Amino acid sequence: MTTPALPSTWDTNDFLPVEPGGLDVLEQETWHAYRDATALIEDILDHQMQRSAGVPHLYYQILVRLSQAPVRQQRMLDLAVNTKITRPRLTHAVERLEKLDWVRRDVCRTDKRGRIAVLTDKGCEVLQRATAGHVAALQYGIFGRLTPEQAAQFGELCRIIARGLESASGGGGLPWQRR
Amino acid sequence: MTTPALPSTWDTNDFLPVEPGGLDVLEQETWHAYRDATALIEDILDHQMQRSAGVPHLYYQILVRLSQAPVRQQRMLDLAVNTKITRPRLTHAVERLEKLDWVRRDVCRTDKRGRIAVLTDKGCEVLQRATAGHVAALQYGIFGRLTPEQAAQFGELCRIIARGLESASGGGGLPWQRR
Repeated sequence: MTTPALPSTWDTNDFLPVEPGGLDVLEQETWHAYRDATALIEDILDHQMQRSAGVPHLYYQILVRLSQAPVRQQRMLDLAVNTKITRPRLTHAVERLEKLDWVRRDVCRTDKRGRIAVLTDKGCEVLQRATAGHVAALQYGIFGRLTPEQAAQFGELCRIIARGLESASGGGGLPWQRR
Repeated sequence: MTTPALPSTWDTNDFLPVEPGGLDVLEQETWHAYRDATALIEDILDHQMQRSAGVPHLYYQILVRLSQAPVRQQRMLDLAVNTKITRPRLTHAVERLEKLDWVRRDVCRTDKRGRIAVLTDKGCEVLQRATAGHVAALQYGIFGRLTPEQAAQFGELCRIIARGLESASGGGGLPWQRR
């Protein structure tokens, strides 16, 4: 198994040069199945959350993360690491959550330049009401499709990919490291 | 294995009522691993395509689909089915691709009310130049993390989920069936 490095050409704004070697047939089939499954699952989760709480599924994930943090608050940077998104994307989402009065932003006490996001009582209430529907969507989209053994296997493969990517990336390769 | 039906409560705009039963510990672990892996892979694919062609990864997928269709064109509805996205989302993407002159829209000859999307020569050129970088991103994000056996297993599980969802859904459950 080879673990390719992050292509250095990603640092240019040009088109990448044509490189030798594409995907083999099995890899292509896996990629197509992955693309289809994730598109359908993302649609289910997002559609359900839009219907039940009027926000994208990502926003619900932000509320979940905050609810699990001590005193329901987290530094913006830590929140970006946990949700695995870029800081601009997180800032945009939190701004919208602030307008809904579900989240509020404060200055960090230990780092005056840092900002923290705080889950409000209203946000907490929304989260509690939205959770059952989210779980139903996960059961419909993923767990109702797989046997318990397949679900465990699926989780293990996802874990290998996620851990591999987190440990392999450095120097701006991970979303929250970018500006 | 139980296959839950699409919850009928999704048709309301209210919050879903709290239902008994959540995810068990193993399901939670699988969900968290899935969420992390897909967030990181999506970021890699999107970041690479933004850098190399200046558009989201989804737009590249639309060009790929058109390039594979006879005479490089497809009805908008078929394109939505293939890319597994909603019609409004596809329309928005194709409008942006039209402005770039990578795609053009025509009236369908056999169905005057239908529209078709056509890959232009410029779009074809962009696609050819962007493909190597996309493949490198897939190798970095997925195939470099898994053994060939794991990749095959991963593809099989994704296929089970995708096929299950496509055959289970009806009555507006699939993205392209919505308006």
